[in-house]
Amino acid sequence: MDNSKVVENIYLLVIVTLLSVLQNAFFAHKVEKECQHNKTPAFQRLSCASRNCMDVYPTFLAVMWCAGLCLSQAPAAFAGLIYLMVRQKYFAGYLGQTSQSTPGYLFGKRILFFLLLMCVVGILNYLLVRFCSRNYKEYIDTITSAASTLLLIP
Amino acid sequence: MDNSKVVENIYLLVIVTLLSVLQNAFFAHKVEKECQHNKTPAFQRLSCASRNCMDVYPTFLAVMWCAGLCLSQAPAAFAGLIYLMVRQKYFAGYLGQTSQSTPGYLFGKRILFFLLLMCVVGILNYLLVRFCSRNYKEYIDTITSAASTLLLIP
Amino acid sequence: MDNSKVVENIYLLVIVTLLSVLQNAFFAHKVEKECQHNKTPAFQRLSCASRNCMDVYPTFLAVMWCAGLCLSQAPAAFAGLIYLMVRQKYFAGYLGQTSQSTPGYLFGKRILFFLLLMCVVGILNYLLVRFCSRNYKEYIDTITSAASTLLLIP
Repeated sequence: MDNSKVVENIYLLVIVTLLSVLQNAFFAHKVEKECQHNKTPAFQRLSCASRNCMDVYPTFLAVMWCAGLCLSQAPAAFAGLIYLMVRQKYFAGYLGQTSQSTPGYLFGKRILFFLLLMCVVGILNYLLVRFCSRNYKEYIDTITSAASTLLLIP
Repeated sequence: MDNSKVVENIYLLVIVTLLSVLQNAFFAHKVEKECQHNKTPAFQRLSCASRNCMDVYPTFLAVMWCAGLCLSQAPAAFAGLIYLMVRQKYFAGYLGQTSQSTPGYLFGKRILFFLLLMCVVGILNYLLVRFCSRNYKEYIDTITSAASTLLLIP
Repeated sequence: MDNSKVVENIYLLVIVTLLSVLQNAFFAHKVEKECQHNKTPAFQRLSCASRNCMDVYPTFLAVMWCAGLCLSQAPAAFAGLIYLMVRQKYFAGYLGQTSQSTPGYLFGKRILFFLLLMCVVGILNYLLVRFCSRNYKEYIDTITSAASTLLLIP
């Protein structure tokens, strides 16, 4: 199996993963910088925001990669990109730098739900192909790509 | 590389991953609901249970996927399913809703060990195929499938 | 798609992942052993060290696997191995058993950066192959293998 054949199917997912890693590094850097002034309220907030982000991170990665592998990578990577933007906004809102977001425990639920739905559709399509030899992949791909733009609505 | 060929080898793993994601969402929802009444003992317990579960989550995903890719997906997915049930029981036990489980820091050690063993056997088999051109895959598959039912013993 | 063909491209990555899982289990075991004596400073330190390690774990796995899949697995697995050693040292240093390391919030930044760079180069090479039909993979592989030995410098 040639490497470039594998990369063809996942390169968008890899790019989004790399961006998420850079964002993690940014969060960790922020926390580390505030770490000297331990016990200040700012550090508590930062640490809490970073922890909430990191708690959901494996779930996000798992769902995005499954959606990308089972259905198609472009909408999955697009949804992943929007998730990263939502996370950035959530983190900034937690710091109190902006007043545009109201931090809670969870964020980006809609995007994760969309990715989850993509996985389910992908699995169902695979089972249909296998047991009924019907392939709706093309229709599904079109619908998914169209639906992914709906995520842009705030 | 056709997508459906990839999906063929991983669809059971994807299904278990999706179930685990749903369970994570359930845990997070529980924590969020209790979040308003911060500093109550119930919230502390919930938060602790959820954190312990999330700490092991990446390890579980890594081991299950490696076992599924290196050896065979059916026993790996089955073990993953049982792990999810054990985790549910652990979470419920932590909340004090049932008295059937004794929460500790760790849980599902036996299942993770089984998955780890599957990986090791898969790697050893690959090295045997490559360097000695002997293939015991069929025997191993039978043994693994039989052994995975042993996980049902409480 | 035959399983052994897949395993060929990832078996080194799987081995490093297994080692990291064993290390996680070792950390968790240490924490659990100290768990009875809750609220002692030793437990606080252990728990903090373990949490810092686990926070970066998904990021590490994502970056290592992307680097291994996009470029080549041997240097990625080697860098992963060194990361595990650095993590062990970090954990030991946190416990105060040795005075050779100065624990901070982050560790192994250089290795993660190297893996990140591998991913970026792999993606760029794939895009070059696709859009300009130029393949520098061989040169890149040589350079990467040589560069990965630089990680050994403390």
